[in-house]
Amino acid sequence: MPKEVSQRSEDLNPFGELIGLRFSTFENGYSQCSLNVKETLHNPNGVVHGGVIYSLADTGMGGAVYSCLDEDELCASVEVKIAYFRFVTSGTLSCESRVVHRSRRLVFVESEVSNDGDLIAKAMGTFSIFKSN
Amino acid sequence: MPKEVSQRSEDLNPFGELIGLRFSTFENGYSQCSLNVKETLHNPNGVVHGGVIYSLADTGMGGAVYSCLDEDELCASVEVKIAYFRFVTSGTLSCESRVVHRSRRLVFVESEVSNDGDLIAKAMGTFSIFKSN
Amino acid sequence: MPKEVSQRSEDLNPFGELIGLRFSTFENGYSQCSLNVKETLHNPNGVVHGGVIYSLADTGMGGAVYSCLDEDELCASVEVKIAYFRFVTSGTLSCESRVVHRSRRLVFVESEVSNDGDLIAKAMGTFSIFKSN
Amino acid sequence: MPKEVSQRSEDLNPFGELIGLRFSTFENGYSQCSLNVKETLHNPNGVVHGGVIYSLADTGMGGAVYSCLDEDELCASVEVKIAYFRFVTSGTLSCESRVVHRSRRLVFVESEVSNDGDLIAKAMGTFSIFKSN
Repeated sequence: MPKEVSQRSEDLNPFGELIGLRFSTFENGYSQCSLNVKETLHNPNGVVHGGVIYSLADTGMGGAVYSCLDEDELCASVEVKIAYFRFVTSGTLSCESRVVHRSRRLVFVESEVSNDGDLIAKAMGTFSIFKSN
Repeated sequence: MPKEVSQRSEDLNPFGELIGLRFSTFENGYSQCSLNVKETLHNPNGVVHGGVIYSLADTGMGGAVYSCLDEDELCASVEVKIAYFRFVTSGTLSCESRVVHRSRRLVFVESEVSNDGDLIAKAMGTFSIFKSN
Repeated sequence: MPKEVSQRSEDLNPFGELIGLRFSTFENGYSQCSLNVKETLHNPNGVVHGGVIYSLADTGMGGAVYSCLDEDELCASVEVKIAYFRFVTSGTLSCESRVVHRSRRLVFVESEVSNDGDLIAKAMGTFSIFKSN
Repeated sequence: MPKEVSQRSEDLNPFGELIGLRFSTFENGYSQCSLNVKETLHNPNGVVHGGVIYSLADTGMGGAVYSCLDEDELCASVEVKIAYFRFVTSGTLSCESRVVHRSRRLVFVESEVSNDGDLIAKAMGTFSIFKSN
């Protein structure tokens, strides 16, 4: 059963709210999240800022990792690499994230970000797991 | 002489404005930019969202690259990798970015992000150069 | 139809020979290559050196990219990131590589490396395409 | 005082020997290592294989990390990203590696690889620390 998204991600994620990010799925080492492109998310070239696409992927990875942690565990991103394939100007950005491998203290995750069906970015990241108390 | 920051970065960067990013230096393959931490930039764990730190580094890298392009050239991030060293909850985030190598079509850049003097993240990225017309 | 592996990869790849790398498939943006673990490929901790696993992935990515280039095109790795999941001490290392996206001048590729069925590393890379003459 | 290179790196590093790698410095979170380019280290394009350059950087990073570990600690590379700036055909490859940040369980390192004075690659990596017993 998925953890309650409302408590650990959406409602209490101020930066996620700022960019309009919402989770739709969040379980078994997998997550889906998305946001609608608005002009406030553009960079000086008139396309969606790379930091917005990254933030969607990083948050989606965190969701995928949380979905397979114990109640007393937290995670944090250690490092993430993202590659950009296409520019985005409008529409919806959707992100699917999957845990690829988990060791005792580290989780490896990857994300695919799409814009209305086209793959526009991929990311690979490493997250650290620690006890919340 | 540095390019006019006001035209190519700050004033016309909607997402940069959303997170409060400002450039102070922008010349010879080098840039400095910063932002003040606000609670709207936090993640669900109560620390600054990794996407905010990334966005500062990505934008700073773009500034460093632009500062050594010709007037008719634009750049875009191809890929960026960021590693996080410490959590940030408040204060100012400062980012220094430097071009490490330029070939004809690609520029390699790196950024160091500090929080009130402590190094909290490093990033390495590859940018693509293309003609604006 | 796949390009002739014997000409562009195996026979003329001195470093590939040094580590015992061989290609089995090489077509349509996809490649398979492998090597048998020997003690000469170990690091000081008695496990396969990370550089060997990386070399397999990098070469496999190059094979996947070459398989979709024109006759007068060459490629070179711009940057590669690899994450290691498990130690390897013996057996066979197998690598599958796939082109994820191709733009005019850049190709994005990823590799999965397995050891006797277990996923032990993943890599993502960017390759540059240029004319051979 | 530097740890004894002869015991933990050079003599007992079979893959390092295979590619001719040698350490010259190894202390305080810093290392220098190098190798002489030979044709057996070339790729099919007649330049040094990216895996050789990577192996030098990965090993150099490991040396830098080991130099600041306790006697009962070992390290392993979690992930490494490398960017290539220039082709190399001959001469000596030299690598300087530095620890950038150490937390309790992770060490962040970076390497610069030069060929007869020219910077030809940079790498950033994350290493995991664990007890040897």
